[in-house]
Amino acid sequence: MLEDAVGLAAVTVLAVLEQAYFSLQVIYARRKYSVSPPATTGPPEFERVFRAQANCSEYFPVFITVLWTAGVFFSQGLSSVCGLLYLYGRLCYFRGYSQSAQGRLAPLYFSAKILWVLVGFSSLGVFLSFCRVYLNVDLLQEVCFALDLV
Amino acid sequence: MLEDAVGLAAVTVLAVLEQAYFSLQVIYARRKYSVSPPATTGPPEFERVFRAQANCSEYFPVFITVLWTAGVFFSQGLSSVCGLLYLYGRLCYFRGYSQSAQGRLAPLYFSAKILWVLVGFSSLGVFLSFCRVYLNVDLLQEVCFALDLV
Amino acid sequence: MLEDAVGLAAVTVLAVLEQAYFSLQVIYARRKYSVSPPATTGPPEFERVFRAQANCSEYFPVFITVLWTAGVFFSQGLSSVCGLLYLYGRLCYFRGYSQSAQGRLAPLYFSAKILWVLVGFSSLGVFLSFCRVYLNVDLLQEVCFALDLV
Repeated sequence: MLEDAVGLAAVTVLAVLEQAYFSLQVIYARRKYSVSPPATTGPPEFERVFRAQANCSEYFPVFITVLWTAGVFFSQGLSSVCGLLYLYGRLCYFRGYSQSAQGRLAPLYFSAKILWVLVGFSSLGVFLSFCRVYLNVDLLQEVCFALDLV
Repeated sequence: MLEDAVGLAAVTVLAVLEQAYFSLQVIYARRKYSVSPPATTGPPEFERVFRAQANCSEYFPVFITVLWTAGVFFSQGLSSVCGLLYLYGRLCYFRGYSQSAQGRLAPLYFSAKILWVLVGFSSLGVFLSFCRVYLNVDLLQEVCFALDLV
Repeated sequence: MLEDAVGLAAVTVLAVLEQAYFSLQVIYARRKYSVSPPATTGPPEFERVFRAQANCSEYFPVFITVLWTAGVFFSQGLSSVCGLLYLYGRLCYFRGYSQSAQGRLAPLYFSAKILWVLVGFSSLGVFLSFCRVYLNVDLLQEVCFALDLV
């Protein structure tokens, strides 16, 4: 079953590659602005790159979690598409934040919205599975039946 | 199979919502105490909220990992209950830490204990599965048999 | 199916225990160098331990993600072995960084290489599964057939 989740796994690998790209940017910024570890403060140019990566890292596990919950319990196709949009939003966020604190805002709101959509899919999927497993009611089918779609 | 893990998935969605709540509190604290990104230092009131959220974020992937390992390899019911207790402990921790550094201690110890219980369940579950899959011994059944329970 | 992933689950539990060990070291360092929360700055000895743990925590979700993606979609055995090597590398990294900033470099490069191997396995596994599920082509078998191995 899990092996069929190719779409989710592909988005997951892309997400890891994106994180690797962000980490490399921090290493380059450390060299460029001469900020040696363990220091994490320095010129604003460095601190913006550092914070951009830290913020993306912080949201990485939340993203992977809702991607898979929404994908397994609701729809793999929709989750994968949302996942790609989220990764694109994060790339824009990283580039925007590297240039100015203001530049991070629009893509941040965009990727937050995508995350909320995935949270919505997850909640709906878990609720429908709960009805199916514990109440033995297939709500999705009931709704289609009521709407005379089947 | 994975679709039957509704309990774990429900706790997972709750955990994501709790993280979202903590993130919003940091945004409100940034506005209230006028600490603009990328700065992460400011008045102690702000720093406590910031560190509380950072600590919860740091433990989020560890929590999700042991929740699912314990749930899949040991018992979904017990893991889900521990998961709910952990999320409750984290809420108390966040509120306590926001008020004073001292206020974070009791709920921190509580949620750490719950995490250890989940680690214990995970270890036990993995050990039992190992015996079943590689040694072809169902230890749980052997124990019940020895105790004359079956 | 998921219950057969005992190897991956065992490495996962070990990874969580390692994280717990690192967290305890930060608590001891806080006491030893008298750095009370929410402060995260202090003598270089403390800051190195703190940053070592923060860095390991940051990579924990990335590691768990590629461990399972590579294990489920490529090979559980190879992934588990890489997982153990990664955890060993992280232990050396933590000890090296605690002693000097220079001491973190060799094990950091080592664990980064292992992570790239896991990313490679994940990508290959996802690509092969994609061919099998969507194109109905079992590339691995085709290759063996072409090499006259079957």
